Amino acid sequence: MANKNIMLTPGPTPLPPQVLEAMSRPLIHHRTEEFGKIFASVIEDMKYVYRTKQTVLMMTCSGTGAMESAVTNLLSPGDATLICTTGAFGDRFVAIHKAFGLSPVVLPFEWGRAVDPDALRASLKANKGLKAVFFQHTDTSTGVVNDLKTLAKIVREESDALVVVDSVSGLACEPLETDAWGLDAVLTGSQKGLMNAPGLGFAALSERAWKAVETAKLPRYNFDYRIMKKSLADRETPWTPAISVVVGQAAALKLLRAEGIENVWKRHDELAAHARRALSAQLGLPFYAKNPANILTGVVLPEGVDGVKLLADILREEGISIAGGQLQLKGKLVRLAHMGYISKSDVDAGVEALARRLAKVKA
Amino acid sequence: MANKNIMLTPGPTPLPPQVLEAMSRPLIHHRTEEFGKIFASVIEDMKYVYRTKQTVLMMTCSGTGAMESAVTNLLSPGDATLICTTGAFGDRFVAIHKAFGLSPVVLPFEWGRAVDPDALRASLKANKGLKAVFFQHTDTSTGVVNDLKTLAKIVREESDALVVVDSVSGLACEPLETDAWGLDAVLTGSQKGLMNAPGLGFAALSERAWKAVETAKLPRYNFDYRIMKKSLADRETPWTPAISVVVGQAAALKLLRAEGIENVWKRHDELAAHARRALSAQLGLPFYAKNPANILTGVVLPEGVDGVKLLADILREEGISIAGGQLQLKGKLVRLAHMGYISKSDVDAGVEALARRLAKVKA
Repeated sequence: MANKNIMLTPGPTPLPPQVLEAMSRPLIHHRTEEFGKIFASVIEDMKYVYRTKQTVLMMTCSGTGAMESAVTNLLSPGDATLICTTGAFGDRFVAIHKAFGLSPVVLPFEWGRAVDPDALRASLKANKGLKAVFFQHTDTSTGVVNDLKTLAKIVREESDALVVVDSVSGLACEPLETDAWGLDAVLTGSQKGLMNAPGLGFAALSERAWKAVETAKLPRYNFDYRIMKKSLADRETPWTPAISVVVGQAAALKLLRAEGIENVWKRHDELAAHARRALSAQLGLPFYAKNPANILTGVVLPEGVDGVKLLADILREEGISIAGGQLQLKGKLVRLAHMGYISKSDVDAGVEALARRLAKVKA
Repeated sequence: MANKNIMLTPGPTPLPPQVLEAMSRPLIHHRTEEFGKIFASVIEDMKYVYRTKQTVLMMTCSGTGAMESAVTNLLSPGDATLICTTGAFGDRFVAIHKAFGLSPVVLPFEWGRAVDPDALRASLKANKGLKAVFFQHTDTSTGVVNDLKTLAKIVREESDALVVVDSVSGLACEPLETDAWGLDAVLTGSQKGLMNAPGLGFAALSERAWKAVETAKLPRYNFDYRIMKKSLADRETPWTPAISVVVGQAAALKLLRAEGIENVWKRHDELAAHARRALSAQLGLPFYAKNPANILTGVVLPEGVDGVKLLADILREEGISIAGGQLQLKGKLVRLAHMGYISKSDVDAGVEALARRLAKVKA
């Protein structure tokens, strides 16, 4: 008998049985009252998760598509922007800006560290006339969480810039208050804290952000928020959406609402603490992030251990998927996720597999 | 007991049980050998369906996203293009061009008619230096099929322009020979002839098209073919794909390969003929398209019949989804699809429901 698969990856995360069941139902057409009701419930429940009363839009894409949509819908050629980078996903915002002809100011932080509020304030003082400032809520490449409440406040104090947040991996894992913290655009994807299959992107937009959308001049069509918002009034999407993933999302959001978002945050906090205790006790290796998020724990492997092989062996022989380091951290880091529908027993199985394998490698 | 739903819509189309089963399996991670194998099989099987030995790329999006991707990856600001429009989807190509700052020459044909080869030739003679010419294979808004073999030949005779084809609703329903007919870019979506849920777009690209991709200057990131092709070499997608839809696509493509693509085309041809016979015999109403495709049959409703209400009643009371007319045809047309996993018994149930309801309305 094959091993039962355990997924401890920071997106996609495992799917609750209710979501799998929803996706296995016969497909329904997207221009029907039945689908309109499901779509409207997804938007309403997303507002609950985002903690916003403002506009939420849905699109069929990866998290990267959602990130691009914010750049092209909020900005015009020549706009000055600031991007705070804390890992690979901050760099992605930079790449998107450059692809669309923008020249952002980049404020980089050492991998493993969060955005420093003082450095942000200094950069805002030095760069006047910014149209928007870009942040990650959590950076999946490093396992860092940014203090968005403080950072957004500083942006407001020092500028009129919009606060744009990639919360693809953070939403529904870490506390986030779109309206109360004054976040203007918050992007996410379906496959992490939202406990659904990948394929959907979302954007929460403040009224300030919406004013920018109406005057932004960067080219966009597939991701045009104006077209999406017009369709939303009829409970429709402008283009055919990933219907089965939308139906799955509705089921997952029902679970999150039933649990209550504060309880969801608390569950992540407790599971992260449990994972770190177990990793410390059984591996005794240093953690990577100085400002660790509740979504995953990055563990630095001993010199000489080939992390790529270690994790490939665990997947092949034990059926447990654990992510490794990206880019300059390739082979040097283990990123054990504890987000979404990942359970305590999943985490324990992953930690034990790591401990067993590492003991073998060192022996 | 609720009615068993029957979907007779031209996308999404019903899903085979094998596809539903595939989508209900526990999710797998996309950076694994297991997913790499599935993804590679999808690309290989898509080459079989496209009848091409050249490049096929996959992206997470609707058909509209795939259409946009061809525009931004093949063209540069100022490029001259020609768009032959035979319905709503030709107009969509025009809208995408305009959104990205291009000024295409538009060659419109009366709705219900295919592109006229002589008119195309005259337009090519009048418009020199075109970078690309855009066609629909079938236009879902009118049920028309274009003779791409002839049209592509004329483009080659009269110009160096690339031949770009939206085959979102045509592929795997009507014969199409990407390589033999010299089509440079052929776009499609997962939710029609490919018998899968919506959420995936595909592009088949000739070597000539690839040369254009390398020099095209329109901005793109999420849909950048160069980034996709680089990941494809590692059996990966650059961004997290709609994994469950990819797994569903692999299952659907296995069915198409087992049947054989010529048999798939023949099946559509026979079912279209059957549908037209049944519609003629039971409804006695005129067909809309002068050059009808095998994907759907458009039937013109009698004056005074409210098509929107008619189809809403059939859906609500009998559980049968049939599409109506779009834009200027709203309420005036019925579009009964006979594509993808739609069966003879599905078509018969739809025709009977239409006949029964129309008799009631007229009585």
